[in-house]
Amino acid sequence: MRTYETIAQLRQALNPARRAGHRIGFVPTMGALHEGHWSLVSQARRSCDEVVVSIFVNPLQFGPGEDMGSYPQTLERDLDGCARHGCDRVFTPSPRQMYPDHTLTRVAVRRLGEPLCGQARKGHFEGVATVVCKLFNVVGPDAAFFGEKDFQQLVIIRRMAHDLNMPVEIVGCPTVREPDGLAVSSRNVHLDADQRSRATSIAAALGEAAEFASHGQREVPQLIAHVRERIAQAGPVQIEYVEVVDPETLEALEVIDQPARMCVAAKYGSVRLIDNMPLDVAGEA
Amino acid sequence: MRTYETIAQLRQALNPARRAGHRIGFVPTMGALHEGHWSLVSQARRSCDEVVVSIFVNPLQFGPGEDMGSYPQTLERDLDGCARHGCDRVFTPSPRQMYPDHTLTRVAVRRLGEPLCGQARKGHFEGVATVVCKLFNVVGPDAAFFGEKDFQQLVIIRRMAHDLNMPVEIVGCPTVREPDGLAVSSRNVHLDADQRSRATSIAAALGEAAEFASHGQREVPQLIAHVRERIAQAGPVQIEYVEVVDPETLEALEVIDQPARMCVAAKYGSVRLIDNMPLDVAGEA
Repeated sequence: MRTYETIAQLRQALNPARRAGHRIGFVPTMGALHEGHWSLVSQARRSCDEVVVSIFVNPLQFGPGEDMGSYPQTLERDLDGCARHGCDRVFTPSPRQMYPDHTLTRVAVRRLGEPLCGQARKGHFEGVATVVCKLFNVVGPDAAFFGEKDFQQLVIIRRMAHDLNMPVEIVGCPTVREPDGLAVSSRNVHLDADQRSRATSIAAALGEAAEFASHGQREVPQLIAHVRERIAQAGPVQIEYVEVVDPETLEALEVIDQPARMCVAAKYGSVRLIDNMPLDVAGEA
Repeated sequence: MRTYETIAQLRQALNPARRAGHRIGFVPTMGALHEGHWSLVSQARRSCDEVVVSIFVNPLQFGPGEDMGSYPQTLERDLDGCARHGCDRVFTPSPRQMYPDHTLTRVAVRRLGEPLCGQARKGHFEGVATVVCKLFNVVGPDAAFFGEKDFQQLVIIRRMAHDLNMPVEIVGCPTVREPDGLAVSSRNVHLDADQRSRATSIAAALGEAAEFASHGQREVPQLIAHVRERIAQAGPVQIEYVEVVDPETLEALEVIDQPARMCVAAKYGSVRLIDNMPLDVAGEA
C-alpha cells in the first residue's frame, strides 16, 4: 500500500492503472475509520482492480459551531487498517493541498440539501458535494462507495454524479451495525456508557417502524409517533427530526404507498447521531 | 470526421484514444460557427492528437426574455466547417440528451459571475459553468479552448477548473476581429448595415484606451469616459457597461497599476455585443 499527500503524486501513480483499463474504486472518508468504512473498502475490493481511500477532514462541510475541531484524528491507526483491508493507495492531503487559495466554486444540489440534516446544518451538503466533486476529479474513479448510514449524502452525491454526467458509478452500501443495532459511526466514541445504551433505541425504533409498515401500517404520522416515543422512553435525548421521505427526492411522505425511507437525527448531550431504514410497502393481497 | 448524438457513443469512441495516451482537445460551442471558433479549433489542432467540438445551445444559460429562440442554428454549415478545419469528432446532443430530467445540480463560481455581464444576465454564468462541467465530464479533455472575446466566461471557467481540480488545461485564445476591428460573434449577423458600421466604434474605442494607457494614462474614469464618448459619437447605442477590471478577480479598478482588462457591453437595437482588451501598465522610466 502506498500513501500520497499531493494531488500530482496520486494522479501520476494512477495513470498507468487507468491506461491499462483497470477499474478504480474509491472510498472517500474523513478518517476515524471503522467497520462501516471497511465494509465500503471490502465492497470496492470485490468489484475493482485498484482501491483508493482518501482521508480528509473537509473544512467546507462544517458549519460555525460544529465539531470539526473534535473530529477524531487517528491517522496511524487508519493507515494500518487500510493496509489490513487491502487498500492499494491512500490519499491524505492537507487542507492547503485541497484548498490552496480561497475557493470560489461550489457545487450545489438544489432542494435535496434542504430537508432532514440540511435544516440544522446549513451549507453542509454544498460543502460535501463540492469536496466529493473535487476528489472525483483528483482520483478519476470508475466507482465510488458510500454508506447508506449517511443516506441524504448518498442521495445527493448520486444526484450530483447523474446531473453532471460524472463518469463514475455511485455504489450505496448497507449500514454496518453494532451487535445491539447501533449504526457504526465515528461519533459513537464520544458517547458515555448511559448515552451509548440509550442510543440503541434509535435502531430499535426504526426496526419496529419497518416491521409495522411491513404489516400494513401506511400512516406516516403513526409511524413517526411510535419512533419518537420509543426513543424518548429510553431516557434523555433531543430528537432533531424523525421523517419518512421519498428515497430519491427526499420529499416528506404522509402515506406509504411507494418506496420510502425513515430517517432520524437525535442528540445525546453534544453527540449528534443519525440513522435510517427503508420502509417496505406492505404486500397487497 | 465523425458526429455523435449521444453521450454513450461519444465516450465509447474516445476511450481508445484516451487509453493510448492521446491528448484530447475540446472546443465547446453553441454552433453558428465562425472564424472565432475556427481559431480555437486550429489552436486545438496544433497542440492535441484529437479535436472534439460540441455544438449545443444550452438552455440553462439563457434567462427569461433572452434570445435563445433566435440563436442562429446552422448545423449543416457548422459540420461542413468542422470537417474543413480538421475536427475529428463533433458532439451534437439534443437538449434531452444533456438534460434527461429536471436537473437539480448547479456549479456556481461565487463573485466572478456578478459584475459585468452578470448584472444584466442573472444566472447566466451558473448555467455556463454547469454545462461546461457536464461537457468536460462527457468528453474528458486534456485541454479546452475558449475565446478571450467572452472574457468573463473564460475567467469563470478557468477558476472553476482550478477550484474543482478538473484535470483539464483551460486555454484562452485571442479574439478574432473583422478587418475593421469588430470582434467576430454569432450575433453580428443580426446587425443591420448602419448598426454594423456604428459597432466598429467599440473596438476602436478600446484600442484608443489601450493606447492612452500605454502612454501613461492610469486614471480609469478618464479612460472609461473616452470609450463611452467614442462609442456614443458613432450614433444610437445603449451602452450597458464600460469597466476596467482585474483580469482574475474581475474587481473594478480605479487606477491602472496592475494588469487590467477593459470590458464593454453595448446594444444596437436588440443586438447585444461585448468586447474587451487588455490595458498594459505604462512602462516606468
